[in-house]
Amino acid sequence: MRQVATLGIGQTKIDEHWEHSLRDLAGEAILATMQDSGRLTIDGLFIGNMLSGLIDQQNNLGALIADWSGLRNVEAVKVEAACASGAAAFRSGLMAIASGEMDSALVLGIEKMTDSHPYEVTAALASAADADYEGEQGVSFVGLNALIMQRYMHEFGWKHADFAPFSINAHANAMHNPCARLHMRVTPESFEKAAMIASPINLLDASPIGDGAAAILLVPAESLRNKPRIVVTASASATDTLAIHDRVDTLFLKAAHLSAKSAYRQAGLQPGDINFFELHDAFSIMAALSLEACGFAERGQGPRLALDGAILPQGSLPICTRGGLKARGHPVGATGIYQLVEVVQQLRGECAETQVKNPKIGMAQNIGGSGATILTHILKLADA
Amino acid sequence: MRQVATLGIGQTKIDEHWEHSLRDLAGEAILATMQDSGRLTIDGLFIGNMLSGLIDQQNNLGALIADWSGLRNVEAVKVEAACASGAAAFRSGLMAIASGEMDSALVLGIEKMTDSHPYEVTAALASAADADYEGEQGVSFVGLNALIMQRYMHEFGWKHADFAPFSINAHANAMHNPCARLHMRVTPESFEKAAMIASPINLLDASPIGDGAAAILLVPAESLRNKPRIVVTASASATDTLAIHDRVDTLFLKAAHLSAKSAYRQAGLQPGDINFFELHDAFSIMAALSLEACGFAERGQGPRLALDGAILPQGSLPICTRGGLKARGHPVGATGIYQLVEVVQQLRGECAETQVKNPKIGMAQNIGGSGATILTHILKLADA
Repeated sequence: MRQVATLGIGQTKIDEHWEHSLRDLAGEAILATMQDSGRLTIDGLFIGNMLSGLIDQQNNLGALIADWSGLRNVEAVKVEAACASGAAAFRSGLMAIASGEMDSALVLGIEKMTDSHPYEVTAALASAADADYEGEQGVSFVGLNALIMQRYMHEFGWKHADFAPFSINAHANAMHNPCARLHMRVTPESFEKAAMIASPINLLDASPIGDGAAAILLVPAESLRNKPRIVVTASASATDTLAIHDRVDTLFLKAAHLSAKSAYRQAGLQPGDINFFELHDAFSIMAALSLEACGFAERGQGPRLALDGAILPQGSLPICTRGGLKARGHPVGATGIYQLVEVVQQLRGECAETQVKNPKIGMAQNIGGSGATILTHILKLADA
Repeated sequence: MRQVATLGIGQTKIDEHWEHSLRDLAGEAILATMQDSGRLTIDGLFIGNMLSGLIDQQNNLGALIADWSGLRNVEAVKVEAACASGAAAFRSGLMAIASGEMDSALVLGIEKMTDSHPYEVTAALASAADADYEGEQGVSFVGLNALIMQRYMHEFGWKHADFAPFSINAHANAMHNPCARLHMRVTPESFEKAAMIASPINLLDASPIGDGAAAILLVPAESLRNKPRIVVTASASATDTLAIHDRVDTLFLKAAHLSAKSAYRQAGLQPGDINFFELHDAFSIMAALSLEACGFAERGQGPRLALDGAILPQGSLPICTRGGLKARGHPVGATGIYQLVEVVQQLRGECAETQVKNPKIGMAQNIGGSGATILTHILKLADA
């Protein structure tokens, strides 16, 4: 199996892009990536997207975006795994290169959400849960996460205020990311005073949706000989039940545990070897559960890492270094690629005020549904 | 790159399955495939589906179906390329095996369409076309194909009746396929008298939608040493503009031509080496255009093969041997897998009344949109 490396990256600002359509945003991210890569052509295009059918009445995104981006006739396909669509597309592109079927694969994450009414977006997002058993009951996606958070606080004795450092760190880091959707500081006071959405999740526990596109060009690592390069040293995916009522333990992200375990084994690493972790903080509770399932904290002790400052850029395990889903924004199907773009930025040393010190190994984890589909990737800076 | 072989196959009847949900149908096809394969576990699940989000309000199909089918925790993802979703998922599974990332990949095509109002289904199918430039004008998917057929008849001088043999052959073959949706003979007279849908496309030019699921288990060919086996000797994909008005020539399926050319090169074959061809006859005009683009007929001469009887099971290039999209039915995202299941059935010699004589090489072509995304696969019977 051929080792795969990242070449170029590109991204748009996450925002309410009312003047730019789905294809506009995709084209902007692809153009930036091709320029960053110094390439004019590619062998294949893999698109991570969740909602173009439901929100934009547009399927067949592969052909649409290949043509619009000046890549007419190139092989192109869309990959969907709810909010994990981005990382799932990345893994598809990786396998295309690893198999030898292609020598370059452009992986794009794209979502256009803000043209629709928020009610429609809420309904569309509920399609990530079990439509027949969860959606049918009228429970929204934030509602499902609220049930998990409520139980977690009850089980392990945390107060709502204990989750504040997750939000504060994400927002502080996003202040230095021009592509982030939200540029505003959060304090312990503002965190506790934020409007309630679905108790105990309030506005500052939850990530904002948005419009955005991000892309990465993958090539065989061997084609970059004699240069420092960023290689994908692990790629793993696992699933759990879609409905949370089907799980033996709703407070343990089994798919995160399985995919992280597989990734550590592939890379020959332990959790302690990871220099920073771009995790999927769609809600603050998900940040805590992700840290636990991946071996960074004991069961029920995820918030401790945040309270102790370990998650800060200068801490022992920086997370959400560019703002995370919470403040960079969460254009659902694109998020997995934003995370991986940010891992590359850190490994390249391009993160200025929130730069992690000399990182060699970065991990990203992307979650689809309430922990149903989870992908873990580890990228490594390899010397020439 | 490892060569990939098919192991087991399975399918449900295509029908209006009002008593069976999306997950039921998927489970039935997967169970049949596992039994046919003699396997209890798999490494990954790849799902071809176009409309579960729009019609069933259900995304994240990978996790849902993995769990429902008794494959909890296994890696799973959905692949979408409109009506070519099935073959696109097959190609993803193939690359997963070829790369060495997996030793078994279950590829499922699934669609559940008949619970919704036909108006909703028509609107949903329009999402395969360009939403901003075609769908926005109110043109339906059959309307787009009607424009192509009208121009084709004008340009090359064919009458509508000249397309009858495509429909007659498909329906005659489906009489012997218990999984086909329609079991009714078509005659030249009934073909000409059928209700008009979008001139010149009438009811017997157009394929019926339906509910259905089909699956194939892929494994490394090397794992089947010392047995006769069916190997995937070519897999190729290409795209064209999504909107037909953007094409230089709307009567030539460039993406079919490119993907077939690539497939022939990979397999070291010429069109004349293909023993039978499961093509994408969503409309009779698409059958004609596909034959031309793949080198079986000169430009404008596709209907000639049908009129001459070459496309019959005993002809020189049998097509739609199990009923094609026209009569077996077209559960859109599942169709590509039905086609490949039928190729395997022919190569195994399981097709009784419509069995092609001693076939060694079968080709399948799956089209998404009005020729926008096209995949071509060639399967070969390899002796021990």
